[in-house]
Amino acid sequence: MNIILLSGGSGKRLWPLSNNVRSKQFLKLFRKQDGGYESMVQRVYRQIMAVDEKTEVTIATSHSQSSSIRNQLGDKVSICVEPCRRDTFPAMALATAFLADERHVSRDECVIVCPVDPYVEDTYFQALKQLEQLVEEGNANLVLMGIEPSYPADKYGYIIPAEKASVSKVLEFKEKPNVEKAKEYLQQGALWNAGVFAFKLGYLLDKAHELIDFTDYRDLFGKFETVKKISFDYAVVENEPSIEVLRYIGGWRDVGTWNMMAEVMTDQTLGEVILDETCVNTNVVNELNIPLLCMGTKDLIIAASGDGILVADKERSGYMKPYVDKIETDIRFAEKSWGTYTVLDAQPGSQTVKISLHAGSRLSYHAHQFRDEVWTVVKGRGCTVIDDMEQEVRPGDTVSIAAGCVHTLIADTEMDVIETQIGEEISSTDKRVFERQAKKV
Amino acid sequence: MNIILLSGGSGKRLWPLSNNVRSKQFLKLFRKQDGGYESMVQRVYRQIMAVDEKTEVTIATSHSQSSSIRNQLGDKVSICVEPCRRDTFPAMALATAFLADERHVSRDECVIVCPVDPYVEDTYFQALKQLEQLVEEGNANLVLMGIEPSYPADKYGYIIPAEKASVSKVLEFKEKPNVEKAKEYLQQGALWNAGVFAFKLGYLLDKAHELIDFTDYRDLFGKFETVKKISFDYAVVENEPSIEVLRYIGGWRDVGTWNMMAEVMTDQTLGEVILDETCVNTNVVNELNIPLLCMGTKDLIIAASGDGILVADKERSGYMKPYVDKIETDIRFAEKSWGTYTVLDAQPGSQTVKISLHAGSRLSYHAHQFRDEVWTVVKGRGCTVIDDMEQEVRPGDTVSIAAGCVHTLIADTEMDVIETQIGEEISSTDKRVFERQAKKV
Repeated sequence: MNIILLSGGSGKRLWPLSNNVRSKQFLKLFRKQDGGYESMVQRVYRQIMAVDEKTEVTIATSHSQSSSIRNQLGDKVSICVEPCRRDTFPAMALATAFLADERHVSRDECVIVCPVDPYVEDTYFQALKQLEQLVEEGNANLVLMGIEPSYPADKYGYIIPAEKASVSKVLEFKEKPNVEKAKEYLQQGALWNAGVFAFKLGYLLDKAHELIDFTDYRDLFGKFETVKKISFDYAVVENEPSIEVLRYIGGWRDVGTWNMMAEVMTDQTLGEVILDETCVNTNVVNELNIPLLCMGTKDLIIAASGDGILVADKERSGYMKPYVDKIETDIRFAEKSWGTYTVLDAQPGSQTVKISLHAGSRLSYHAHQFRDEVWTVVKGRGCTVIDDMEQEVRPGDTVSIAAGCVHTLIADTEMDVIETQIGEEISSTDKRVFERQAKKV
Repeated sequence: MNIILLSGGSGKRLWPLSNNVRSKQFLKLFRKQDGGYESMVQRVYRQIMAVDEKTEVTIATSHSQSSSIRNQLGDKVSICVEPCRRDTFPAMALATAFLADERHVSRDECVIVCPVDPYVEDTYFQALKQLEQLVEEGNANLVLMGIEPSYPADKYGYIIPAEKASVSKVLEFKEKPNVEKAKEYLQQGALWNAGVFAFKLGYLLDKAHELIDFTDYRDLFGKFETVKKISFDYAVVENEPSIEVLRYIGGWRDVGTWNMMAEVMTDQTLGEVILDETCVNTNVVNELNIPLLCMGTKDLIIAASGDGILVADKERSGYMKPYVDKIETDIRFAEKSWGTYTVLDAQPGSQTVKISLHAGSRLSYHAHQFRDEVWTVVKGRGCTVIDDMEQEVRPGDTVSIAAGCVHTLIADTEMDVIETQIGEEISSTDKRVFERQAKKV
């Protein structure tokens, strides 16, 4: 089975835990059987493997997410990086071309496209196997999964099937209706459109060439910025007469808001949290390393991270986007391919950052024009390279890097370094990366 | 007028803003007319000066508070430091001996003892002048201020006056009653005991010599640890037949809990706080430099500092002591005579601290046995002294201090320094201060 997981937008709907570089699918909020925690993307990948460990998983995503995916899933998945965001049809076209040209998947093989963030039972992934069978049977060009609605929701699109059987031809698609309309649809046996599409690779490849002028994967990658933004629904689904839908009746949740997330969090609290005995229906996620005490709170979601603190009535938590959009904060925490970056202190003229590197990883070889930096090693061993000069470092060692000097840090073991940045204009854009690698590299 | 302000206990009742080194009277929560903020102790001192700018104010307190008092009130007040805590009678005896022997106040002068933290109108301090007059008239040995009760409170002691006149002899004192008893007292015209006592200096000096064996201030200071703990009420008030009380009918509040504090805070929010339009009766104090967003919150007190985060229903906020007592945190923020100390990051084997010094101030000349330290200057200019070696420093400079080296930092201008501590046993007790001063000193 070939699965393409669409790992979408940045989004601040789970602010302050999610931000422009940390999407909600990477938040480790779900308890694993071994006691640790896993993210949505780890959970989904684990569930896929449990159903069929030979599944080839490709994640279609932006460059900014690829470090998080590598950190969380390792090298087990393929990543198809979109040079820029162009909506779902171009993304699926690129991923399909990637499978054909880079992974040599044949035109006859089934490909299933699926969002990366459904909170579902394992039966959902077993249903994906059924989708594959339906595609192989070839009674339709496109096979969708429809979710049996649990209430007349106004936030999903609807699929109107020809009959109420488990598998049916699709009569029609409906945009997000109001609640009254939704009730009517439910009486007709309508299903929620969960964004799961199955087809033969050749089918989508042909559609892609029909609508976009390109030769192969690399060509499409190169001209991706010029491709028109359009969703798969508009570009393909609405014009395709031969569609089947598989009715899925198991648990399914879209955890796009804190209120939804609170319902599926395994633990009522995460992090250093104390609830007194009068707290009711309160969920807390505390990523800060200071205690958070709740007294007599009711129906609240509380989330704290280096980016900010949210205290929200659960019902109201879905409406926070306009408020969060107004908050202009520099990113204070970021997951990188080499580890993590945490801003400890920022003031005019200087910034103090904690850099944690995985064993064996390294920073890029780079320079800043407008700031000096000082590294103080507080944990682990490694090597710094400053303008080609290598130096072994260990806890207590400091290295001063004047503006303009090209520098990198190579971690032999896990390393923690306190970086002090000094300059009138400290900006994440003041960075030039150099190709040339140090001798040790 | 001589006023002794009793600046009491550490207390965590306003946690996470108050802690063992930062008492609630030093929190700058009250807006001044010039737009800045002032603390309880600053507010009370300003109010005293507004009534009589010639008042001599002495603050009786512990060593741990004297830096905060000096930072907030400067040299305008005398500080009578108690070597250890011995309850109110020994504290008042020491302060009285201090006034007699160090400030040469005569036995006939009036002294008024007053808590440092009443939230009151200016008329309260005008009433202190009346107390002084009553003491000078000499109809009683002790004159108290009684607060006209606004409700039958069970958390204050009561004074039963002989008559309902503005000034009356005192018949009796009552311990904190239950609400039923309190209602009875109110019908008898009883007053709350607010802990304000006025007397001639000689009166209390004699009582002190009666109950404690000492010669003068320095002698009492030296043996303070051996003095029995006893409150002024038990030691003196309950045995004194000649007491008058002045009835005070203006506004008076004891802001010992967050709920009370919320009522008197000038601004609903302090710090970087956003309330959406559905928030009701929510007060927020955010000392962290990250945004705090509230959505649809109701009847809440929220307070965030480097020590922790509190989210409490206002009614419940008075009951947090047992929960806070269980929170074991190292102090993450402290106000010192030379500036402030803020822990930015702590992990096994290292700790990163931001040290901010006032212009012209210096750290003690000290050494640590079990940790190395690295200073990185990020703002200002000054001089370090390491084992007698002086070195001028400016932003970007680093200084490494091996365990055992005696070191200090002297700030010529305002300075900020990032201190990285490295060692297996990092503890605030690992510090030895040396008398010997560096050459520049």
